[in-house]
Amino acid sequence: MPIDLSPDPVAARLAERTAEFVRDIVLPLEEEHRGVVRSEDVRTHLQDAAKQAGVFAPHVAREYGGHGLDMRGRSVVFEAAGYSLLGPLALNIAAPDEGNMHLLEAIATEQQKERYLRPLASGAIRSCFAMTEPAPGAGSDPDALATRADRVDGGWRINGRKWFITGADGAGFAICMARTSGEPGDRGGATMFLVDQDNPGMRTVRHIETLDESLYGGHIELLFDDCVVPDEAVLGEVDEGFRYAQIRLGPARMTHCMRWLGIAQRAQDIAVARASDRRLFGARLGDLGMTQQMIADNEIDIAASRALIRQASWELDQGGRAGQATAIAKTFCAEAIWRVVDRALQICGSLGVSGDLPLGRFLREVRPFRIYDGPSETHRWAIARRVLRHHEKTAGS
Amino acid sequence: MPIDLSPDPVAARLAERTAEFVRDIVLPLEEEHRGVVRSEDVRTHLQDAAKQAGVFAPHVAREYGGHGLDMRGRSVVFEAAGYSLLGPLALNIAAPDEGNMHLLEAIATEQQKERYLRPLASGAIRSCFAMTEPAPGAGSDPDALATRADRVDGGWRINGRKWFITGADGAGFAICMARTSGEPGDRGGATMFLVDQDNPGMRTVRHIETLDESLYGGHIELLFDDCVVPDEAVLGEVDEGFRYAQIRLGPARMTHCMRWLGIAQRAQDIAVARASDRRLFGARLGDLGMTQQMIADNEIDIAASRALIRQASWELDQGGRAGQATAIAKTFCAEAIWRVVDRALQICGSLGVSGDLPLGRFLREVRPFRIYDGPSETHRWAIARRVLRHHEKTAGS
Amino acid sequence: MPIDLSPDPVAARLAERTAEFVRDIVLPLEEEHRGVVRSEDVRTHLQDAAKQAGVFAPHVAREYGGHGLDMRGRSVVFEAAGYSLLGPLALNIAAPDEGNMHLLEAIATEQQKERYLRPLASGAIRSCFAMTEPAPGAGSDPDALATRADRVDGGWRINGRKWFITGADGAGFAICMARTSGEPGDRGGATMFLVDQDNPGMRTVRHIETLDESLYGGHIELLFDDCVVPDEAVLGEVDEGFRYAQIRLGPARMTHCMRWLGIAQRAQDIAVARASDRRLFGARLGDLGMTQQMIADNEIDIAASRALIRQASWELDQGGRAGQATAIAKTFCAEAIWRVVDRALQICGSLGVSGDLPLGRFLREVRPFRIYDGPSETHRWAIARRVLRHHEKTAGS
Amino acid sequence: MPIDLSPDPVAARLAERTAEFVRDIVLPLEEEHRGVVRSEDVRTHLQDAAKQAGVFAPHVAREYGGHGLDMRGRSVVFEAAGYSLLGPLALNIAAPDEGNMHLLEAIATEQQKERYLRPLASGAIRSCFAMTEPAPGAGSDPDALATRADRVDGGWRINGRKWFITGADGAGFAICMARTSGEPGDRGGATMFLVDQDNPGMRTVRHIETLDESLYGGHIELLFDDCVVPDEAVLGEVDEGFRYAQIRLGPARMTHCMRWLGIAQRAQDIAVARASDRRLFGARLGDLGMTQQMIADNEIDIAASRALIRQASWELDQGGRAGQATAIAKTFCAEAIWRVVDRALQICGSLGVSGDLPLGRFLREVRPFRIYDGPSETHRWAIARRVLRHHEKTAGS
Repeated sequence: MPIDLSPDPVAARLAERTAEFVRDIVLPLEEEHRGVVRSEDVRTHLQDAAKQAGVFAPHVAREYGGHGLDMRGRSVVFEAAGYSLLGPLALNIAAPDEGNMHLLEAIATEQQKERYLRPLASGAIRSCFAMTEPAPGAGSDPDALATRADRVDGGWRINGRKWFITGADGAGFAICMARTSGEPGDRGGATMFLVDQDNPGMRTVRHIETLDESLYGGHIELLFDDCVVPDEAVLGEVDEGFRYAQIRLGPARMTHCMRWLGIAQRAQDIAVARASDRRLFGARLGDLGMTQQMIADNEIDIAASRALIRQASWELDQGGRAGQATAIAKTFCAEAIWRVVDRALQICGSLGVSGDLPLGRFLREVRPFRIYDGPSETHRWAIARRVLRHHEKTAGS
Repeated sequence: MPIDLSPDPVAARLAERTAEFVRDIVLPLEEEHRGVVRSEDVRTHLQDAAKQAGVFAPHVAREYGGHGLDMRGRSVVFEAAGYSLLGPLALNIAAPDEGNMHLLEAIATEQQKERYLRPLASGAIRSCFAMTEPAPGAGSDPDALATRADRVDGGWRINGRKWFITGADGAGFAICMARTSGEPGDRGGATMFLVDQDNPGMRTVRHIETLDESLYGGHIELLFDDCVVPDEAVLGEVDEGFRYAQIRLGPARMTHCMRWLGIAQRAQDIAVARASDRRLFGARLGDLGMTQQMIADNEIDIAASRALIRQASWELDQGGRAGQATAIAKTFCAEAIWRVVDRALQICGSLGVSGDLPLGRFLREVRPFRIYDGPSETHRWAIARRVLRHHEKTAGS
Repeated sequence: MPIDLSPDPVAARLAERTAEFVRDIVLPLEEEHRGVVRSEDVRTHLQDAAKQAGVFAPHVAREYGGHGLDMRGRSVVFEAAGYSLLGPLALNIAAPDEGNMHLLEAIATEQQKERYLRPLASGAIRSCFAMTEPAPGAGSDPDALATRADRVDGGWRINGRKWFITGADGAGFAICMARTSGEPGDRGGATMFLVDQDNPGMRTVRHIETLDESLYGGHIELLFDDCVVPDEAVLGEVDEGFRYAQIRLGPARMTHCMRWLGIAQRAQDIAVARASDRRLFGARLGDLGMTQQMIADNEIDIAASRALIRQASWELDQGGRAGQATAIAKTFCAEAIWRVVDRALQICGSLGVSGDLPLGRFLREVRPFRIYDGPSETHRWAIARRVLRHHEKTAGS
Repeated sequence: MPIDLSPDPVAARLAERTAEFVRDIVLPLEEEHRGVVRSEDVRTHLQDAAKQAGVFAPHVAREYGGHGLDMRGRSVVFEAAGYSLLGPLALNIAAPDEGNMHLLEAIATEQQKERYLRPLASGAIRSCFAMTEPAPGAGSDPDALATRADRVDGGWRINGRKWFITGADGAGFAICMARTSGEPGDRGGATMFLVDQDNPGMRTVRHIETLDESLYGGHIELLFDDCVVPDEAVLGEVDEGFRYAQIRLGPARMTHCMRWLGIAQRAQDIAVARASDRRLFGARLGDLGMTQQMIADNEIDIAASRALIRQASWELDQGGRAGQATAIAKTFCAEAIWRVVDRALQICGSLGVSGDLPLGRFLREVRPFRIYDGPSETHRWAIARRVLRHHEKTAGS
């Protein structure tokens, strides 16, 4: 049975419907809100519309109201949704909710699923993933985890500071990563806790102002200050948090890529339309060689991103961790998507940096992706280390 | 007499004083205002402080209250001022005023100088340069100039639309470029007019929202609607506007580079400080090879930018148009400065994209410089054409 | 049925056997001959060994003695063969023979197949493809075809000059592209002719010395000087040559990429081995961040090349022309493979430029691939044009 | 006194005469020998011609028959000589002789100068600089020096292996760097020795085959096997070898850049001529945007290289070590020159990779310059370290 690259017909149809939905319903709202929504009304309106269009929650299991797509299926649908900054919010596949649903499906108890996954999957509540800490805590190096959870009677007491916690403002609950054994620097000893919004020990310190602004619920600095949670708040097993983080990590990396690839394609479409219409020096802009070069490089970057996402998605669907494939895809996509948006903006000239087009907004949104979810440097280090280790193993045999 | 690269001692001392002034007075205000000032009080405060520090108006002739620096002298002082987003405003060397003073010194009548240059040089008023038009008008291709000035009794009537007119909001006067003969596409036939702020025929259509926000007075769309000006409003000779634009263009290109190079150096200093302090994976961030590569590439880009600016400044000081040298320097600097800021942000990671550091702001400010003052593509086209023409001339001989 | 990326098991097994064959048999000979073979004895020896190993002619139909792999199957086997400069020669899948076999299978008559394809497929003879002409003839722009074939009694008389005709020295026959109607610049009017080696009207003018030297039979300048061929020498239909060239072109582009990707992987393996063993500044070379960056970038480039080749191969196997996919893959691969070899050489330092390693040789061999089979600039132009045309079509609807 | 970039008139006139000499005398010989000379007759012929033209030995003190140019003067003359691969040999400014003359002038005794410098300066003999060792000896890391010199009665006995010793074949003497105290890895403890060609303890092991081939006398592997030299063979002071190496290093880095910049300019001139003459797709090649982009990028790279060389040369002429400026210039120039030659070749297409143009030869010659004289990675590491150290010093104050 040879290689087959045609997408699953169900996923393909869903992607098509998603593309229509984005074009007809989401884009006008994106323009109205200039890509940044901060109102529950708009969120609810978008999600209701997605439900009506039959494109809501494509990644969630059918029993929780979704379409049950695997990673390969997500790759086509998420890209279609990512064509607008508001598409993922509408489909309920935005970060970090989408990754949290994935994680809850994989390791939560039935009770936890009813309490957290079901309302999350339906859009009734939102969530956040409280892992990253300000230096010298857990950032590029997760082992540096400094937030602690100590045993108390019938539960745990969490203390520590988290930042860049996307979506935390207004989230119904947080999945908080805390050290239950070992010291900062140790590999292992972390546990995941489900912390309810109204827990008095969890406090928003501030909204972190960032270059990007479109992720709903912002980037928040959270303080866990003698935050007590019951034993039922433990997600999975105690001390297995790092392992679970890996379950979430690979797919979450890829879904980021899928969504942002949609924005890259959108930027390219805007630039191509401009290059087609605008006249300059007696020629059409799109007939000038340097413009053609940028258009072609965009096509190449988009095609290669898509192909690498597919590779990693397929590996994940085979049940592996796909550490190397997702690191390669994430590193390439983050930089390629950035290049595509930058070139598109350059093609459009002054108009491109103006608010008359959304390209400046896109540039701001995609820049941090070269840092979020692991900076390119960390991924390159991991990629090289795997290659070197593989060489040593095979050379030794 | 061999090559001598040591700067003029007077300019060097002024640069040093400027650096101190920026560090002590301007940076705290920059932080307070997050790099963007929109208040006359703050502007006046900054400029008064610069006057007190003896660093105000370094480029203006002594008889108009300045220090009379040539382009080489400006190159060191402007970079020192550009170390803060607010430095150029404080020294009264921000775009477009600085270029307008240069132009007025070169071609205005004595009367015009008293009326426009003197108050501009002292900071009493500001100005704008109304050349660029929305497509299909004058943009990358100046010959496409579509705004018209028609002869009327005792003066001219101007009609046309201009956009991206930096600093126009609140400017005391505009230098408006309009076609007095020929048709859009013709080389020649433009005239410059001095239009007072209160001329009822000149109207602000809107503030153009842009990726960059730090240039005082914004980027404005202006409408000239039967705007009548007297004969004394003609700057220089009728139909010589394109030639005068060239007088302004070369130096203005370079002073942009000088100022933004200051921001590049600032970004590098921030990144180096971070690399020096931050620990990661058991090492200092600055001891990691990929960080060192970014730091080194920043040094190289800054050094090359500085060297190319100096070359072009020297050529301009020799009295030439320096078309090739300024095009080369502008193209390289715009891209190098962008790379430097981008790498600095990457070195700082999440902190870099947060408002806790000004790097995201810098990224937004320098991106348009690859488009403003001629996109890199237009400059490359001009550079190549000059080389080819030179080849043909010498090959034919 | 979802996307499936696992290769066909038959192709996978053949790729594995090819890898072993290359490692055990071909690499020692490559080292002995320093990558460049010019002797029929060595060619025959290599091909006999490949036959014995059961890996000969993987792409040829079974009835002509091959394994009948489709493009997807070829993509894994050809890369394995390309791991050595001599691997493709050994398997009889080197350019231009491999592309010629593909073309003959597709359009030759049964008689022509017996006379030309069968001995070619078995390695008894070699062939060449005489299309490219010196400027101002057919090069990047095929329509410029200047070689002419005029009707004579019972056949055609060909006149023209061809150059960079790979493998022409010693080839048993040439497929010559000549204009049978229209003028240089016209689209269409070309015909393909089978010209025997001993035809007195076909003459080798010279071996063109080139940066690359490993393609067997060299790059030749050929003169067709009143070269008369019979009607049976016409391959396919008269005036359909450009269309047939397209049949050959897409797959030939991809098989080039597959083979050179093998060399890229080999270069990477050499560099990784070096980085693993060499110590510098008290550390292992492979522990230095800048080395890791180069290793990681090589992995990324190789992975993306492989993914793009697979995409294009799959499209070709679906029966399409895959013009856009093959242009994208060719452009990306040619540049990525070049970067990989360049970085590998840099990692190895002085040793890398020395003859003690084959990396300098590889660098010479892969550089022209950014020019052969269409320079990157021509492909980018075609890619952009397709995108723009697609936009116009869909925008018009 | 402001910055002055006009070169010294004497140097400028010498540069002009050198340019003429290269064009009229050297280029025809370069073409005849395809850039690679291995005959003493040709060397003598070229140098006699340079003497006749009055351009011989521009860098040597007048008392040794030269023109006594400082580094700034050399920068213009060496670039003019470097326009041909054979120019530096003709002027007697090729590596490593040029650097050795510089070193001997600076630290040799009068007797040593008469015996070694005088005949070297006149071209009567050649020389080599025996420092680099195969791994794990002195390469990128000079402290790893493993060759030893032990005290014997009235002199020293040297043992060790050197490789990549440029020009060693036929050299009248070698300057050999050997450890006289300490162990490999120690900073310090090296001494320089003058070793005569006929010393039976110094033996050529082999010519190292390399990608580059134009440096006269090849790259040699040398064995010092109980090589006994008298006390008078010590150059400078015992144990001061590393310090002297620094005296040679900075200027030698720059003269390499100057010479190779000449080749970059030559490559650009060839490409521009081609772009001017060749027609493609109904246009002149030089009218196509992607070609213009490559031409412009070449101009920019050449201008920046020139400006950085001037900066470093000026600093060296002020008497400093100019460690940062030479590292920056070397790193940038090595990569920029490589890019220029690569783009020039791309512009010329198939012709560019053929022996009909010298561009393939140039590509081979300039590639190792990114490794020789310190790989770019080592320089970047050193550049970053200096910046970080500077930050720590100033931050601490």
